[in-house]
Amino acid sequence: MSKGEVVLLDCWMSPFCMRVKIALNEKGVEYEHREEDLFGGKSELLLQSNPIHKKVPVLLHDRKPLSESAIIVGYIDEIWASPPLLPSCAYGRAKARFWADFIDKKLYEAATQIWRTNGEERGAATRDFIETLKQMEEALGDKNYFGGEGDAFGFVDIMAIGVASWFHAYEKFGGFKVADHCPKLSGWLKRCKQRESVSKVLPDPEKVYEFVVMLRKMQGLD
Amino acid sequence: MSKGEVVLLDCWMSPFCMRVKIALNEKGVEYEHREEDLFGGKSELLLQSNPIHKKVPVLLHDRKPLSESAIIVGYIDEIWASPPLLPSCAYGRAKARFWADFIDKKLYEAATQIWRTNGEERGAATRDFIETLKQMEEALGDKNYFGGEGDAFGFVDIMAIGVASWFHAYEKFGGFKVADHCPKLSGWLKRCKQRESVSKVLPDPEKVYEFVVMLRKMQGLD
Repeated sequence: MSKGEVVLLDCWMSPFCMRVKIALNEKGVEYEHREEDLFGGKSELLLQSNPIHKKVPVLLHDRKPLSESAIIVGYIDEIWASPPLLPSCAYGRAKARFWADFIDKKLYEAATQIWRTNGEERGAATRDFIETLKQMEEALGDKNYFGGEGDAFGFVDIMAIGVASWFHAYEKFGGFKVADHCPKLSGWLKRCKQRESVSKVLPDPEKVYEFVVMLRKMQGLD
Repeated sequence: MSKGEVVLLDCWMSPFCMRVKIALNEKGVEYEHREEDLFGGKSELLLQSNPIHKKVPVLLHDRKPLSESAIIVGYIDEIWASPPLLPSCAYGRAKARFWADFIDKKLYEAATQIWRTNGEERGAATRDFIETLKQMEEALGDKNYFGGEGDAFGFVDIMAIGVASWFHAYEKFGGFKVADHCPKLSGWLKRCKQRESVSKVLPDPEKVYEFVVMLRKMQGLD
């Protein structure tokens, strides 16, 4: 399984870093993990490796840097072929990439608005987020996982779990329960958490909530 | 070269539709083109084929719908293998996808702010756009094309040309010339326009400018 040195520039609460760690775990790839201090000063290695965005995650594969989580997970799937994360047919891959894109552009953006706002603006953001979740719920349908290949755990699941790792914080700020609106999605998240590749990556939801409380204070929102 | 029926739901001024048409032309794929009237009412086929975003481009390959231009171009590259648009190695593909993502998230967004704003806000948007162009210029370096494979015309070029097709309008609204700030990028655009796959797709720059003037009036900006 060894195909060179793998180093991840990481941050524990980043939904995007979680994706990369879950993908590496699914593939059974051993990697060195380096926690970045995003507030205390980013490492020289991070700034050099991702000069455009200066953001985690960065995956260094034999010192060659890769950034942007969806791209990194796709790369991991190409280099370490088993188990496959993306479908084997071109149309399936395109559909998986469509939902990954939806998760980043719609779901994540809608989610972020919940904690970045107050009052009526937060109410609107919460309603918007729930509507977006319902679109995900419909895409999931009666399948166990978004897939990947058929019903198997795969690329779209990994993309979605990163965002789902903050659900508890969104629920507390938005005053709602994902399970009340999207029971199938709630079941999907429980199934995902039973996977070792996922459970050993996801942080304590309460710790994420406390991090968001701190972020809001830093940004003068509370 | 025939691999089933190919229909494109299109709109002449859309940078995203241009990408799909250029990719199909590069591959020598024949397709049926259906112009959508985005203001007069979208077709039932468009609404059914892209129920999430309800946007062009949609490519129907044997009636199976695909949306999101970067994803469609990647799909085209997988189905019609020659000439390749994405590099043959996984790391090259990841880098090409990184720049495609940069073009959509940074370059296109910065560009759009130029015509969506007025006064000092437009000045700031123009400066921001030029900085982003300079990052593209640096990525291009002394190569003929962004590639693709090596120095060949490819995926990143196709992503960038869509945005570049509106340069004339951005220049007129922003009061600057791309060539003054980014001579290499300007040379790249000239080279691209010499390709038949590109020249038969790009609309008259003045017609695009007039379209933006109309858009601004519709949105109450003038």
